[in-house]
Amino acid sequence: MDELSAIPASPHYAVIFTSLRTGGDRGYAEMADEMLELARRQPGFLGVESVRDASGFGITVSYWESEEAIRNWRENARHRLAQRLGRELWYRSYAVRVCKVERGYTFGE
Amino acid sequence: MDELSAIPASPHYAVIFTSLRTGGDRGYAEMADEMLELARRQPGFLGVESVRDASGFGITVSYWESEEAIRNWRENARHRLAQRLGRELWYRSYAVRVCKVERGYTFGE
Repeated sequence: MDELSAIPASPHYAVIFTSLRTGGDRGYAEMADEMLELARRQPGFLGVESVRDASGFGITVSYWESEEAIRNWRENARHRLAQRLGRELWYRSYAVRVCKVERGYTFGE
Repeated sequence: MDELSAIPASPHYAVIFTSLRTGGDRGYAEMADEMLELARRQPGFLGVESVRDASGFGITVSYWESEEAIRNWRENARHRLAQRLGRELWYRSYAVRVCKVERGYTFGE
């Protein structure tokens, strides 16, 4: 990531995905890139911010116009495969939180 | 970070803080540690998850019992100093989003 997502004025939602990786890649990086690109093409997608540090701890926040858009993305067939492989191979643990963005503000560029 | 925050069953809130650092430390690391410790001692604090990568992009999500707890933390005198120094010294840009956590689930440990 090298830029922050804009904050729309209209009501919208955030999905906070926090995770701890297992060791090794085993196809993770390629699938993570594919999922970012696929998410960007979903109806109702507003933006995504993602960071992982060298220890394997990561936070990805994606922003969506509606809860329906979030449900559709969760049920996307390729995304469902990624979720299954995530549990089998890539993540030691993770948490998903669906949130309504109540307000926000930005500083800088 | 080396563990994920638990998700309480009761209604609660998340503050998503995404940021791009300026170059150099200039007291940042020390203040960041102090703010994490201070936040943990605030009434209504539920947890925090924080990651920054080598490029300077970071996401910190803190969890709170109520919007009042978030307001009190925002107005904390030492935190207000940190916010001012953040704008003057440490951050090229940032975004703050206050969210209501609608639901969540976890996998793994």
